[in-house]
Amino acid sequence: MSRPHLLSIDDLGASGIRELLALTDNMAEVNRRPIPKVPALRGRTVVSLFYEDSTRTRLSFETAAKRLSADTMTFNVGSSSVNKGESLRDTVETICAMGVDAIVVRHRSAGVPWRVAAWGDASVVNAGDGWHEHPTQALLDCYTVATELDRPFEGLRIVIVGDIKHSRVARSNVLAFSALGAEVTLVAPGTLLPPSLEGWPVTVDHDLESVLATTDVVYVLRMQLERMEQALVPSLREYTAGYGLTPARAALLPAHALIMHPGPMNRGVEIAPEVADSPRSVITTQVRNGVAVRMAVLYWLLGSGVALGDEGER
Amino acid sequence: MSRPHLLSIDDLGASGIRELLALTDNMAEVNRRPIPKVPALRGRTVVSLFYEDSTRTRLSFETAAKRLSADTMTFNVGSSSVNKGESLRDTVETICAMGVDAIVVRHRSAGVPWRVAAWGDASVVNAGDGWHEHPTQALLDCYTVATELDRPFEGLRIVIVGDIKHSRVARSNVLAFSALGAEVTLVAPGTLLPPSLEGWPVTVDHDLESVLATTDVVYVLRMQLERMEQALVPSLREYTAGYGLTPARAALLPAHALIMHPGPMNRGVEIAPEVADSPRSVITTQVRNGVAVRMAVLYWLLGSGVALGDEGER
Amino acid sequence: MSRPHLLSIDDLGASGIRELLALTDNMAEVNRRPIPKVPALRGRTVVSLFYEDSTRTRLSFETAAKRLSADTMTFNVGSSSVNKGESLRDTVETICAMGVDAIVVRHRSAGVPWRVAAWGDASVVNAGDGWHEHPTQALLDCYTVATELDRPFEGLRIVIVGDIKHSRVARSNVLAFSALGAEVTLVAPGTLLPPSLEGWPVTVDHDLESVLATTDVVYVLRMQLERMEQALVPSLREYTAGYGLTPARAALLPAHALIMHPGPMNRGVEIAPEVADSPRSVITTQVRNGVAVRMAVLYWLLGSGVALGDEGER
Repeated sequence: MSRPHLLSIDDLGASGIRELLALTDNMAEVNRRPIPKVPALRGRTVVSLFYEDSTRTRLSFETAAKRLSADTMTFNVGSSSVNKGESLRDTVETICAMGVDAIVVRHRSAGVPWRVAAWGDASVVNAGDGWHEHPTQALLDCYTVATELDRPFEGLRIVIVGDIKHSRVARSNVLAFSALGAEVTLVAPGTLLPPSLEGWPVTVDHDLESVLATTDVVYVLRMQLERMEQALVPSLREYTAGYGLTPARAALLPAHALIMHPGPMNRGVEIAPEVADSPRSVITTQVRNGVAVRMAVLYWLLGSGVALGDEGER
Repeated sequence: MSRPHLLSIDDLGASGIRELLALTDNMAEVNRRPIPKVPALRGRTVVSLFYEDSTRTRLSFETAAKRLSADTMTFNVGSSSVNKGESLRDTVETICAMGVDAIVVRHRSAGVPWRVAAWGDASVVNAGDGWHEHPTQALLDCYTVATELDRPFEGLRIVIVGDIKHSRVARSNVLAFSALGAEVTLVAPGTLLPPSLEGWPVTVDHDLESVLATTDVVYVLRMQLERMEQALVPSLREYTAGYGLTPARAALLPAHALIMHPGPMNRGVEIAPEVADSPRSVITTQVRNGVAVRMAVLYWLLGSGVALGDEGER
Repeated sequence: MSRPHLLSIDDLGASGIRELLALTDNMAEVNRRPIPKVPALRGRTVVSLFYEDSTRTRLSFETAAKRLSADTMTFNVGSSSVNKGESLRDTVETICAMGVDAIVVRHRSAGVPWRVAAWGDASVVNAGDGWHEHPTQALLDCYTVATELDRPFEGLRIVIVGDIKHSRVARSNVLAFSALGAEVTLVAPGTLLPPSLEGWPVTVDHDLESVLATTDVVYVLRMQLERMEQALVPSLREYTAGYGLTPARAALLPAHALIMHPGPMNRGVEIAPEVADSPRSVITTQVRNGVAVRMAVLYWLLGSGVALGDEGER
């Protein structure tokens, strides 16, 4: 029996997403307890193998693992044998030989998590592979929409605005939102859209203002500052003028609409500070839900039917 | 109800200091047990957010947190979203959204811990902000004086020698020592004194040798080597000649006097190796007490009346 | 009573090695349990003090410590007071004053672990000192030979091939293998042998092919790529031609022979990929056994007769 993995939203499908969102509800309940810690994964080991910087995502997984009483370790690529020319495969085989149960991997190349899963005998969580997928981000965003917006997913209108082309968040979120029945519209300059959107279950629009009035959720992507150097946008000021979520644009949204961002934000570029801090912004709620979603994912991968009783019930 | 913080010695006052020193006594007793670990903070999470290097202080807090069974995490600024231009405020809000209970913060700018406390909903411990304050260092120094010197604090004569101007340790210790009733004398070249000492409850002297015979505690500050490049001292050799604690000067001290240093030492600059290693030096005792003091601080901030029974009593 | 240390294979002798291998058997049994974690070192603290990069060895010790329920911390030399000019001695005294029970030390200079042991009051494990010793590597290699090869150690023929001169692994393994009764042959170009082998219980050969047919274990050392820059080998291609374990050479081995390597491998240099991945290669088994051996070492140093019952028996 091979171990389960979480590599892509595509693999999960609508039923897998719904199962994980239900499990997230249980984890959110654990997190509201006075002592938010359960022994469910005691004796399990979770290793973070990050080839790209991300304290934010790494801390979220680490917090999640510790609340389930798993042991956590970081394979710090900067100070590792990778510098000595060791292949990724040998690194993975070495980590697995130490008896690790799950590897949370981030890598700048699309597809690496699949290779890690094939080489080792640990469960693998894709924490971002190139421009490809970032499934736990999509799950926490779905959970946030489901719990913050008192409406069914079917028929929700969600706008994703920004650098779609280079965004694994966009890709995973499009797949997850539409699997659950939402209608997704992408808004971006042509240079920041993928060369082909064939097969993407989306509508494309280039005019942000025209779509906002009928939007339930506007999801603002982070603007990578190096895109300007690559001449994909003329200047940050022009990008903000055309695609930034300014207070004037946010005012076009219906009263119930949510404003989301995966973080870290470039305040004043893709989102105005007043918008980021406004009541309809659920950006810190996304971060909070991230811990519960990652607890659900780790429990789903590694748990073995241990009830989520608190420490005193052991 | 807002959470409590430890931001400055000024906030604590004499009664707060005494309360924490009494709690430190309990923690020192825990540390003498065969298994120096108690479940008091099980399920609590303590994050180190250090914008300045300090393995020494970070390890001391981490040891303290683990002995109380808290989970610990490090927000490594070098590899974090801070590199991606994220604001300090967004970093703090992100960390807090993950459900962190306490943030131990060190930053090169005075006042940052107050901002961290205002932005988030975690308890904040100031582990050093610019040249301003370092309250846990002052507490561990008070605890060391109280336990190593068999005399009441009232009327003790304490000399602090060295770079007062750029030292948060000096500032916090002056406040704490004098709050408890000691008489503090500062000894330093004029270039290493603050522009104004108005309001500091201290006496200033420029001649170290003249004060040592009547001193109960001599507290030697670390000489930052970059002060020489800034031309604040003519040369390290001249600094040592005028203000270093040499064996000849240490011989002027009364037999009961203590020699203290916050570490790390520049042996041969501000303190001679023989003096640092002499029986009246309590420098490693300061480090040992640092763990107990930080346990007391974390317990005071996050504890909820759980008794300090040992593991077996759970 | 001074604390025990593990500094060298020489100190252990044959009886010490056998005692630790027997204890490793117990730890390997723990590692096969559904929850591979025991409370044996609860409340003990193990610090990694690594002055040379090695995520692999550090992770192995950290995994071992956590499976025994010890707390672990890393003294990251890059971000430490060492940068501020603190002496190694002050660093060790500081770590020990915090109440650490064991220090796992790696340093580029031979002999440093002995100094660490003399300065502090913690148990010290040598995790590699210069070209001198790496005793836990030798122990895990002995354990691997003992468990993978169904023959007594006495009379085994073991070939170690590669850069003997600069290898602490070679030195510790020669001592351990021969203490247990094996006959060790070294194969290397003259430039990669120590200037004198007087007192080493070994035979030397320069022709790898001539010895393989009668070898029970071939132990391939990592080729440090900087040796080429130092002109100790003419080129990597020539090194591989003369001393690499190619498929043709591996075919000369008896059917029962083991192929070993301490990792990380330079595939295609000292060992061919097909050989590294062949059934007779036990390279990942070595990594797996490394965790069990390090559990045995930490338990031997810090344990106090607590039985290795599982979590539920507490």
